[in-house]
Amino acid sequence: MNTVNMNTMSWVAYRDRIATANPPIFLPVGALEQHGPHLPLGTDALLSAAVAASAAEQIDGIVAPALSYGYKSQPKCGGGQHFCGTTSVDAQTLIGLVRDTVREFARHGVEKLVVVNGHYENQWFITEGIDLAMRDLQPGAKIQVMRMEYWDFLTAATLRAVFPDGFPGYALEHAAVIETSLMLHYHPELVRLDLIPDDGPANFPAYDIYPADPDWVPPSGVLSSARGADAVKGEIMATELAACIAKAVMTEFERA
Amino acid sequence: MNTVNMNTMSWVAYRDRIATANPPIFLPVGALEQHGPHLPLGTDALLSAAVAASAAEQIDGIVAPALSYGYKSQPKCGGGQHFCGTTSVDAQTLIGLVRDTVREFARHGVEKLVVVNGHYENQWFITEGIDLAMRDLQPGAKIQVMRMEYWDFLTAATLRAVFPDGFPGYALEHAAVIETSLMLHYHPELVRLDLIPDDGPANFPAYDIYPADPDWVPPSGVLSSARGADAVKGEIMATELAACIAKAVMTEFERA
Amino acid sequence: MNTVNMNTMSWVAYRDRIATANPPIFLPVGALEQHGPHLPLGTDALLSAAVAASAAEQIDGIVAPALSYGYKSQPKCGGGQHFCGTTSVDAQTLIGLVRDTVREFARHGVEKLVVVNGHYENQWFITEGIDLAMRDLQPGAKIQVMRMEYWDFLTAATLRAVFPDGFPGYALEHAAVIETSLMLHYHPELVRLDLIPDDGPANFPAYDIYPADPDWVPPSGVLSSARGADAVKGEIMATELAACIAKAVMTEFERA
Amino acid sequence: MNTVNMNTMSWVAYRDRIATANPPIFLPVGALEQHGPHLPLGTDALLSAAVAASAAEQIDGIVAPALSYGYKSQPKCGGGQHFCGTTSVDAQTLIGLVRDTVREFARHGVEKLVVVNGHYENQWFITEGIDLAMRDLQPGAKIQVMRMEYWDFLTAATLRAVFPDGFPGYALEHAAVIETSLMLHYHPELVRLDLIPDDGPANFPAYDIYPADPDWVPPSGVLSSARGADAVKGEIMATELAACIAKAVMTEFERA
Amino acid sequence: MNTVNMNTMSWVAYRDRIATANPPIFLPVGALEQHGPHLPLGTDALLSAAVAASAAEQIDGIVAPALSYGYKSQPKCGGGQHFCGTTSVDAQTLIGLVRDTVREFARHGVEKLVVVNGHYENQWFITEGIDLAMRDLQPGAKIQVMRMEYWDFLTAATLRAVFPDGFPGYALEHAAVIETSLMLHYHPELVRLDLIPDDGPANFPAYDIYPADPDWVPPSGVLSSARGADAVKGEIMATELAACIAKAVMTEFERA
Amino acid sequence: MNTVNMNTMSWVAYRDRIATANPPIFLPVGALEQHGPHLPLGTDALLSAAVAASAAEQIDGIVAPALSYGYKSQPKCGGGQHFCGTTSVDAQTLIGLVRDTVREFARHGVEKLVVVNGHYENQWFITEGIDLAMRDLQPGAKIQVMRMEYWDFLTAATLRAVFPDGFPGYALEHAAVIETSLMLHYHPELVRLDLIPDDGPANFPAYDIYPADPDWVPPSGVLSSARGADAVKGEIMATELAACIAKAVMTEFERA
Repeated sequence: MNTVNMNTMSWVAYRDRIATANPPIFLPVGALEQHGPHLPLGTDALLSAAVAASAAEQIDGIVAPALSYGYKSQPKCGGGQHFCGTTSVDAQTLIGLVRDTVREFARHGVEKLVVVNGHYENQWFITEGIDLAMRDLQPGAKIQVMRMEYWDFLTAATLRAVFPDGFPGYALEHAAVIETSLMLHYHPELVRLDLIPDDGPANFPAYDIYPADPDWVPPSGVLSSARGADAVKGEIMATELAACIAKAVMTEFERA
Repeated sequence: MNTVNMNTMSWVAYRDRIATANPPIFLPVGALEQHGPHLPLGTDALLSAAVAASAAEQIDGIVAPALSYGYKSQPKCGGGQHFCGTTSVDAQTLIGLVRDTVREFARHGVEKLVVVNGHYENQWFITEGIDLAMRDLQPGAKIQVMRMEYWDFLTAATLRAVFPDGFPGYALEHAAVIETSLMLHYHPELVRLDLIPDDGPANFPAYDIYPADPDWVPPSGVLSSARGADAVKGEIMATELAACIAKAVMTEFERA
Repeated sequence: MNTVNMNTMSWVAYRDRIATANPPIFLPVGALEQHGPHLPLGTDALLSAAVAASAAEQIDGIVAPALSYGYKSQPKCGGGQHFCGTTSVDAQTLIGLVRDTVREFARHGVEKLVVVNGHYENQWFITEGIDLAMRDLQPGAKIQVMRMEYWDFLTAATLRAVFPDGFPGYALEHAAVIETSLMLHYHPELVRLDLIPDDGPANFPAYDIYPADPDWVPPSGVLSSARGADAVKGEIMATELAACIAKAVMTEFERA
Repeated sequence: MNTVNMNTMSWVAYRDRIATANPPIFLPVGALEQHGPHLPLGTDALLSAAVAASAAEQIDGIVAPALSYGYKSQPKCGGGQHFCGTTSVDAQTLIGLVRDTVREFARHGVEKLVVVNGHYENQWFITEGIDLAMRDLQPGAKIQVMRMEYWDFLTAATLRAVFPDGFPGYALEHAAVIETSLMLHYHPELVRLDLIPDDGPANFPAYDIYPADPDWVPPSGVLSSARGADAVKGEIMATELAACIAKAVMTEFERA
Repeated sequence: MNTVNMNTMSWVAYRDRIATANPPIFLPVGALEQHGPHLPLGTDALLSAAVAASAAEQIDGIVAPALSYGYKSQPKCGGGQHFCGTTSVDAQTLIGLVRDTVREFARHGVEKLVVVNGHYENQWFITEGIDLAMRDLQPGAKIQVMRMEYWDFLTAATLRAVFPDGFPGYALEHAAVIETSLMLHYHPELVRLDLIPDDGPANFPAYDIYPADPDWVPPSGVLSSARGADAVKGEIMATELAACIAKAVMTEFERA
Repeated sequence: MNTVNMNTMSWVAYRDRIATANPPIFLPVGALEQHGPHLPLGTDALLSAAVAASAAEQIDGIVAPALSYGYKSQPKCGGGQHFCGTTSVDAQTLIGLVRDTVREFARHGVEKLVVVNGHYENQWFITEGIDLAMRDLQPGAKIQVMRMEYWDFLTAATLRAVFPDGFPGYALEHAAVIETSLMLHYHPELVRLDLIPDDGPANFPAYDIYPADPDWVPPSGVLSSARGADAVKGEIMATELAACIAKAVMTEFERA
């Protein structure tokens, strides 16, 4: 049994860690969503769990099992729900998952919970889930919850290094340079570099349309090219993310 | 990318498999729940996923990511919610997860979905989730869904072999001989044989009481002893389960 | 006004009983579900109410009106939802009914509530309803809730007497010997012995399938024959159930 | 087995009636609510079921089991939720009960459903339940649903006869002359005439206040005196209600 | 910034009013619903807001933004859902809106909340929303909530003056004399007197039918004629409503 | 009755417009939320409605009543829920409001619906509401829905003109230059320029924390200074927004 992944620990080991060390618990939230022909459907869960584990290792944290299914994919940030393989849940379901698990960690005596989101569309439903759990727990509860999109910890310097021609923005970074590089670092066996499509950056209007128009999105599902991705960039980013998240967790929760 | 786990496939590879081979998709449903001092918290998700993968390999099926969090633990079958580490969700959440994912697989064109439950308490909420999804999909939908507790495929002969002194019934088989043996087969590195407690079979009344009385359950969380567990029994059971489930899937869906 | 059925008491009489005697309140939960050609649709509500009343009479308890509609019938235990006359509710509805009524009994000052289930499919939704009510009421609430399937109080000796050729298990005991005998004892005018079908024990696979396959179930709706039923067996079982339930209620709640 | 009450019929008998006679099905909706010291808690369910049965008998209709628990009691029409014994459900629960059962009757092939409400507070939640069921069933469904408060079928002439000093309005007719007279007709053994309180008509302001103020309501729970009640009035009203409802059902559904 | 409408005040100004003056807050609830050819769709929200503002001005109250969308229109009181332009919400949505906003006003420190309903169909869902909010806030919360249909404050004398030929009852007063007169007083530019239809009083049976029968309602949507409406009657009623509501608010909350 | 605001039209006028002109319907979604000491609580609803009306006027569109209450305020974009006066709803409520109203516009025969969001936190719950409505309406429904945050139509050139020292990003544009300038254009009487605080741009970490830390946000509630706001900038932006939105609506829906 390792000391990072909660699902491989016995309850006795977990309980003792909580009681003696008051460790931060990381809850990764991902998705099962198309990530182009070169990345696997589970990318968002794999990466949020990997980043969480890297951060947790630095500060003796524990990583709970990832929420593997995320909110419905949107054309502008994930390609949309018309892709085969994308397997999503409704708002109410994701809100419920987060609400219930936050409440359970509070029951365990956890005081430092870190929700690490790896799927853009999840953000606001995670927020609602945490908010409802905090309401359930009522003022005075000892648990505090941090919520983050992991990529927000990348520094401007790193983004300049990773995108020598300029950073196109997170909006189009779906199955593109950041995710592909991180996958090459964490799970190289799951990346098919030879299948990276040439699809240039998608160009979206200032609005959304329902039902979604599949023509807005390249048939590959890639919103901007992953051609610039490599494992070195992945390592640089992974190292920075782990360090910055670990530091933020330590600082924020010590302050509390 | 292997050919069994959906989350490690690209959407293109998944789509092509669905379109050409009409494979059965397995959805394992587990829990994060105390399993005594010798088994990890993730046992139910690990085992339902492992059994599903073994069956899927025999018939070119695909295994979707397990639902890692299950319904609230009950004293008589899982020890109850007072254990630290047990991390459960409400009925509505589990129902929603199943309903949403079943609907998504139907959208993919999946016609054969197999929900493999590994946590006793999940059964009826999975049932409701499937039922609501089928209602959403309306008569005429091509998808069919099998639902099972994997242990129900063990034959009487195997149970006699595994329990030479008599099978105590599935009710008490929590963190006991079957689960421990299967874990020794699939994930031996996660089993601490040296920590198996001596707790004899729990003796429950004919009713339940709320709030639950922790005194009903041994402090270890084990409902009957896992002393008789070994990897050979695990292999025998794993082999039988994979074969029987694979056969049932083939037979049932061919008949359709 | 009698002293057992809550719906025939005035609120003043009920209030005085609660205030002075702290009596157990029994809440029967049934169903409106096919029970073969020989038993009425209301069998589960009639029997759970009758058993509850028999037990209540022994210990000055009060019986609340039965929940007359139960969770959706499943092929393996109730024949399934394709039968005309079976009138079922969704999980959320049954959960809500139980949650709301438990909360109300707590408001009345009831400290001993006994939920007597007479429809197999209800079990887990009753459990969730009670659990949510207890959460609403928060730790410190004085109410305790027992939950039972009434048949679980039958002793092995009685089962041997009732089934001289061996007990086929509760799974198939739908509209069969136990229910028919109890109905002959409690409501003989509602039983049509002449219409008991010959349908032998149903033989189900280890899994469920959705949409349900009507061919799994005899057209009569009976899962194993009721031929062995008679009023004497009914009386023996009714007597034992009342005594055992009454005793369990007294013992458990005194211990509290 | 009689031919009026659905819960005492076998499914075969019910199915045959539906298939051959297309009978109206009556669904009574009541409450478990204080009705003063002289009437039982179950009055609303007992009366709505009795009126439904009387009407059904005239036109070969069938009466389904009453919904025994109603929406939360309000001070101005039922005394309010502060009374012990009043046992109510939330809006969502009652809406769900009605929605689910209407959908089930439609599945049975029922084309004429009559929801007979006997508890004032239920009205709008029954309406929502029916509306949602009709939406679920989609345009083209053969079922039609009538919804009524049974007392609305009393004629002005009858009200004049029953209230020689003037009808105070249905608002205050809680546990008063109409309900007490009907109970004396249908269930005289459940009425305690000697306990009718002297409480004069309650006098409410033009608004409601939350939390409710118990001082608005007489401690007895009676909103206007039942002194004028007798069994003859009960019979007159029961006869008129049965005849008028039966006629409305026949006329309305024939027109369809 | 005026001192009546909350949405035109800064939060600082609002906070200071709450902290220093403990003013009553009025929450108008309306609908977007057909009101015949002569009144606008927004009549119910416009009138409940106008009446609330008139009352608030007399007692230094504050008026929150109206809930502009109401519960589904019913044939007997609003014409029904078959009218184009009527834009309604489900029970759950209206209940949620009221529950959430009541809880928020309590968080602000508001102790006197007055919910002014202007759409008949809203009444019971507002009631449920307030009840659930009070439950959320738990006993001891300082907020009290009044709930009213504004027309219930009209005196018998005024009704006699407004309806010299007799008051037909509120049931038929949809887009009729009261609403048209009040609109002529408050928003004369939105009334088209020349388009008032001749439709006599609608004549409804004692029951409702689903799906609704459009033939029950005049094609104009008017349930009784607005011919007798004029601005003077509107002013008389507006003056009385403002005075009576203001007085009731002052009296009731002072008593508390 | 004007021709832009739906709530001031009669249903007959609205119906005729829909039937003959197939106009786009605009649904503004706002909030009741602190906007510093210088802007009113209703700013988001006022601005989304004003922008929608300006666009609608150009293309004969119709503006429905704004949803006046929005999702819970977050520290980084609206200051957070600790401010007095901020009056927010839960996710489920906002989702329901959008779902229900979209479904109603579809029933009216509306084919072009434009949801104009003016409160950042609303975005994803509006998305879910539309998605659920489209699912309810089923494939083949004629209605199409555009969804937008109105500010996304500002061009880079305009942002440069409005922010000569550089645009700080929409994240901090709460009660700052854009909103204040637009209010000075549309509702100058509701702006208190003299009360604009000096609070410099807020500086937030890469994560969120729950419960929110009020110290993250200036006590004024302003996230970056509105000092640069003026009515001319407001007019420039208002003109551009109206033109660009009108054009996008025409283009997108013509293409359909």
